[in-house]
Amino acid sequence: MRTVTFLPSYRKIDVARGTTILDAAQRAGLNLNVVCGGQGKCGKCVVYIQSGKTEFDKEKYGRFFTPAELANGACLACATLVQGDLQVMVPESTLIQEQKILVEGEDNPIDFRPSVRKYFVELHPPTLSDPSPDLSRLLWGIQKSGGPEAEKMYVPLEVLRVIPAILRHSDWKVTATIGLVPGGYRLIDLQENDTSGRVYGAAVDLGSTTVVVYLWNLVTGKVAGVASNYNKQIGCGEDILARVNYARKNGLTRLQALAAESINSAITSACNTAGIDRDDIYEVVVSGNTVMTHMLLGIDPAYMIAEPYVPVVRRALSVAASRIGIACNPNGGVFAFPAVSDFIGGDIIADILACGMADREEISLLIDIGTNFEVVLGNQEWMFSCAGAAGPALEGGEVLFGMRANPGAIEKITIDYATLAPKFTTINNVKPRGICGSGLIDLLAELLKACVIDRMGRINTDIDNPRIRITGHFPEYVIAWAKETDIGKDLVITENDIKNLIMSKASVHAACVTLMKEAGISRHEISTIYFAGAFGNYLDKKNAITIGLIPEIEIGQIRNLGNGAVVGSNIALVNRRVRKQLDEIAHKIGYIELNAETAFMDEYTSSSFLPHTDLDLFPGVQKMLETCRIRRG
Amino acid sequence: MRTVTFLPSYRKIDVARGTTILDAAQRAGLNLNVVCGGQGKCGKCVVYIQSGKTEFDKEKYGRFFTPAELANGACLACATLVQGDLQVMVPESTLIQEQKILVEGEDNPIDFRPSVRKYFVELHPPTLSDPSPDLSRLLWGIQKSGGPEAEKMYVPLEVLRVIPAILRHSDWKVTATIGLVPGGYRLIDLQENDTSGRVYGAAVDLGSTTVVVYLWNLVTGKVAGVASNYNKQIGCGEDILARVNYARKNGLTRLQALAAESINSAITSACNTAGIDRDDIYEVVVSGNTVMTHMLLGIDPAYMIAEPYVPVVRRALSVAASRIGIACNPNGGVFAFPAVSDFIGGDIIADILACGMADREEISLLIDIGTNFEVVLGNQEWMFSCAGAAGPALEGGEVLFGMRANPGAIEKITIDYATLAPKFTTINNVKPRGICGSGLIDLLAELLKACVIDRMGRINTDIDNPRIRITGHFPEYVIAWAKETDIGKDLVITENDIKNLIMSKASVHAACVTLMKEAGISRHEISTIYFAGAFGNYLDKKNAITIGLIPEIEIGQIRNLGNGAVVGSNIALVNRRVRKQLDEIAHKIGYIELNAETAFMDEYTSSSFLPHTDLDLFPGVQKMLETCRIRRG
Repeated sequence: MRTVTFLPSYRKIDVARGTTILDAAQRAGLNLNVVCGGQGKCGKCVVYIQSGKTEFDKEKYGRFFTPAELANGACLACATLVQGDLQVMVPESTLIQEQKILVEGEDNPIDFRPSVRKYFVELHPPTLSDPSPDLSRLLWGIQKSGGPEAEKMYVPLEVLRVIPAILRHSDWKVTATIGLVPGGYRLIDLQENDTSGRVYGAAVDLGSTTVVVYLWNLVTGKVAGVASNYNKQIGCGEDILARVNYARKNGLTRLQALAAESINSAITSACNTAGIDRDDIYEVVVSGNTVMTHMLLGIDPAYMIAEPYVPVVRRALSVAASRIGIACNPNGGVFAFPAVSDFIGGDIIADILACGMADREEISLLIDIGTNFEVVLGNQEWMFSCAGAAGPALEGGEVLFGMRANPGAIEKITIDYATLAPKFTTINNVKPRGICGSGLIDLLAELLKACVIDRMGRINTDIDNPRIRITGHFPEYVIAWAKETDIGKDLVITENDIKNLIMSKASVHAACVTLMKEAGISRHEISTIYFAGAFGNYLDKKNAITIGLIPEIEIGQIRNLGNGAVVGSNIALVNRRVRKQLDEIAHKIGYIELNAETAFMDEYTSSSFLPHTDLDLFPGVQKMLETCRIRRG
Repeated sequence: MRTVTFLPSYRKIDVARGTTILDAAQRAGLNLNVVCGGQGKCGKCVVYIQSGKTEFDKEKYGRFFTPAELANGACLACATLVQGDLQVMVPESTLIQEQKILVEGEDNPIDFRPSVRKYFVELHPPTLSDPSPDLSRLLWGIQKSGGPEAEKMYVPLEVLRVIPAILRHSDWKVTATIGLVPGGYRLIDLQENDTSGRVYGAAVDLGSTTVVVYLWNLVTGKVAGVASNYNKQIGCGEDILARVNYARKNGLTRLQALAAESINSAITSACNTAGIDRDDIYEVVVSGNTVMTHMLLGIDPAYMIAEPYVPVVRRALSVAASRIGIACNPNGGVFAFPAVSDFIGGDIIADILACGMADREEISLLIDIGTNFEVVLGNQEWMFSCAGAAGPALEGGEVLFGMRANPGAIEKITIDYATLAPKFTTINNVKPRGICGSGLIDLLAELLKACVIDRMGRINTDIDNPRIRITGHFPEYVIAWAKETDIGKDLVITENDIKNLIMSKASVHAACVTLMKEAGISRHEISTIYFAGAFGNYLDKKNAITIGLIPEIEIGQIRNLGNGAVVGSNIALVNRRVRKQLDEIAHKIGYIELNAETAFMDEYTSSSFLPHTDLDLFPGVQKMLETCRIRRG
């Protein structure tokens, strides 16, 4: 065994030689960022070895670091094996941050109405003159202690069987855990003595890459711990489609177990850090996309990936945790968010909860962008949703020097309109290696404002500037000269890249407009646009409007939700009333199949301009572009 | 393998050499009477070997038969091993007879409202323009076919998981089984194609000795088959107390499994006979005494056999059949009758259902006599109950020549008042070997009427008759001379026997009166007395009143319920409304602890006369006895 000491917290853990630092950290209760699932691809889990022997392949993973960083002991936790006793520094930026919980304006506290409560009861033992059965005695005791009516409490067999022994072992002083279930109450658990302060719940965002767990103290209403873990299904396929195909070939058992294990690891890690016994968790609320939810529940997702694309179930489901292998109290339950369709899943319903749009009269537009995008428009009365493929361009794919938001990615950029020289910042402030989604949106908007490209995305090769040139087939703009980069060659954006970006942004905008037309509303009636997911966090909102990614509204009306899926899970966990409404919300949401809508195709064509063919829809952008043109002359 | 052919039905079965004929018969679907549980003790499972080789210990079991019977091939099926191919005649009297179902007067049919129904639905397959999820599609189909509202149907995970494959394999033509559960409906099962005619339920009387099962077709409302089996727990102890002690020592697992196996054997046997698939049974309703019910459910019964005698639970319980190992549809359920106390169990609640006393304004008195007795008094408004030890005298125990109701037992007897010579009939019309319960009650009444005994049960030794004599310590009356018997000695009843009988009958009568006093009613207000169980079937009702076993009412108002426990189970199985009321009925029944009632002790003393110290309570008997006395002079 080797001892790994993590700094600055000085947490220690003994692990076998050959363990990855990532595993060691998770077992020590530290939650490192592992977007890629610990495959050495994302470069997020950076740590610094202060002392001790490790095995790390610098050839393979050195590209994530500058020589100076490597000299300081930088390595990827997921790709570094423990060889001797170690001291490892974990920078703040490598730890997963707690999400801020946002409900109807950040100042409103969450309405705390948990559905599980414990009652400590002291009973009189039975006597010849009071020989009522153990169960009646207990239920009356609970009722007298402020619990539900004795007759309304359902008692499952597994609890019933342990009642007599527990009552007698504890000298008739016990703690009963009561949960609210459809149509009444359920005696979930019975423990000896007073454990009434120990009631926990877990809110889970089951993503296809990452699992995030929030542990709540359901007595105090406070978060007790947070943990995350990569989704262990990654071994069965990187994306959803690959995993569904794996299930078709090999059955669902392994994928189901891996989904549960991924959640369990995160729960265990959060419990260890917070010093909580897993058996004190009585409820687990899970939001995930429709395929992930099917897999976790062991329901075949195969019919969602082929025509006519149908899920098996979309209603919310409550199941015994033990039935799906979730590690909490043996009598605990799991609540899975409902879905609208195969593409609008429980994660989007959770986003809707997180932004509160279903509670308000004002109309909101919710946008979640990844390789696919989902859009929801509506208010407390009505909602429409749609989903589509954004293509990978907005995430840095299908772009020559595009990359994910990893160290060395240009994340922000401006262009001097006179010299056309760019000014940018990269992630981790190292020499640039590429450009990620937020940088690409900035770049597109800046190139447009600098009149380097026209509204169709064509580069004006008439401009006499060394940064504008034709190499190979396409005109291109040089963002950084070879010597300024970490890759030893000119970092450019090509006209083809720009076309791909425009196609992606056009899809998203066309989807928004299709929903607005379906609802018969104009952009003026939208009170707020919410970006869910990581995409919104780094995005320059003004530039997003400039390129026509989203309808033009006031910048102040655009908000970032962050991880709305986990926020929504949190809300549903701590408020039983909300949970009851979820099916109703899901049911209310109309789903528009974009491929079946000619309106969408028309709108897609109109949106394939910067910002749009119809500039009346973007009056602010029009005005700005006019200023730019005048300035440029 | 040996082939056993049962006559007169010509049912054949192949069994291994050494199998008992009882086992062979059960596997062939024949339900033989085995009161003792197949231990060779009760002599009920009489069969006649017509041809073939068997192994049967005549030394040990010959006492059950006359030489003529033995010459005809008579043997006990439970104690006879198959050696060669056999032809076995099964007399009608050896088969368990179907119980007549009695509800509020024999002419009323049972109100048929089953809680499980099947719906055959033909669905449209999903298309791109109708991509609703499998579950929604199915539930809407069920609703359209006359089933419950789609939103109100709960679907357990195990069914949900099989839905997509079944829908597609069956080309979207499926049969859904819907059960009524508290607060809504449950999709219990989904099958391919149209199986809507195949819905069965089983009503079970789980006795400590015998298990009786009625199989009901829940579509037609007809009994599809009946079977019985001994309770396999007998190997862990003959009586309840012994079994609870076994459980305390060895745990409950084996007893739980044996209870389930006993039910399963009977269900299987009934299914085989009726040609029904066990998987088509969706509901099993079980009535049993409180200890048997606890054992079947795997709930510790230990606390019921020691002070302060408390059961764990008394409410009705619905559990998944698979949880307790009952062999029916994997998603089927078991409903267990509620109890009132450790001594007034689900079997008595079933008796109450069977006689309908909880539905009527008139007051009824229900009496179930075995080694213990249970008494319930009341009507639709109120009920009181009590239980006590009758002692074994009424069943032929604690009486010198007392015996169970086996072949050779005197079951009916009259005495010539002039000669004091008895006239009797024995079971199977063989030479007498002893006297059973019904014979003893007759004898007591006849001896009283013949003035052989006085009202304290003392034999009048002044009477000059060879049948009245003193041998050893006690005066005695000779029922049969040695040469008339099968046992080669004088068959007598002693004064001590009579004292024991009076103590037993006094307990029962005192219990009845204690309840009547508690309710403040007189015997005139009792409209009907019901005898539950086998005891009442053979009892001379008039003599029961003559000796003061029960309060004096009109003979016509006394009814035999037969096996009320299985009748009650039947009623609860086929009528969901009745099942809902059971907890209410059980709750309404007050339980009087006789040992804590001084009124009971006083009444016991007063009842220890024939018929009672207070003859005003038995005016008919008083009048009759006066006539007898006058006649005798």
